[in-house]
Amino acid sequence: MTDEENTQQTEKVENTEKGENIVYVGKKPTMNYVLAVVTQFNGGMNEVTIKARGNAISKAVDVFEIVRNRFMTNLKNKGIVTSSEELTNEDGSKSKVSAIQITLAV
Amino acid sequence: MTDEENTQQTEKVENTEKGENIVYVGKKPTMNYVLAVVTQFNGGMNEVTIKARGNAISKAVDVFEIVRNRFMTNLKNKGIVTSSEELTNEDGSKSKVSAIQITLAV
Repeated sequence: MTDEENTQQTEKVENTEKGENIVYVGKKPTMNYVLAVVTQFNGGMNEVTIKARGNAISKAVDVFEIVRNRFMTNLKNKGIVTSSEELTNEDGSKSKVSAIQITLAV
Repeated sequence: MTDEENTQQTEKVENTEKGENIVYVGKKPTMNYVLAVVTQFNGGMNEVTIKARGNAISKAVDVFEIVRNRFMTNLKNKGIVTSSEELTNEDGSKSKVSAIQITLAV
């Protein structure tokens, strides 16, 4: 690896730590993700984004509501955005799946 | 029923027809709700709200994405709002359930 590549690598990690604090909601219990979000804020983050796709969207909304109502009532909702993502199945065919992105800030 | 009550009744229906065009998303197939939303707009409504609770939240986002991407690409997203609602179970205990409300306008 050259020095230049090395520098780029470091920058990328910094950017991620500064700007993109994302909690991906999947199949684990809801409270795992609630804890992940609260931990991010307690670690000094000013903004956390909750992301989910497909059936996990309902759980992402639960996580958001629980964090906001039970743990950190001072949080601001910076916007809920939905989108469609295209997935390629194992047989090569394509499916569309909805996604949600909820951004919270102190 | 007195005349006054009669008048109020009529007003209420008018208000509902004018301002509150709500499609409640539940257990039926997604395309049923997509059709319901598109039908409302084709019937002359300027605004339709999609509502869902609990696990149906994911389906509500699907309905929204399908209507917007496949049927009526000119629609504006007037905002996505989430909330928590309290339900009383059969045994008298209470549970909280998340809800979503997505408003679309031409």
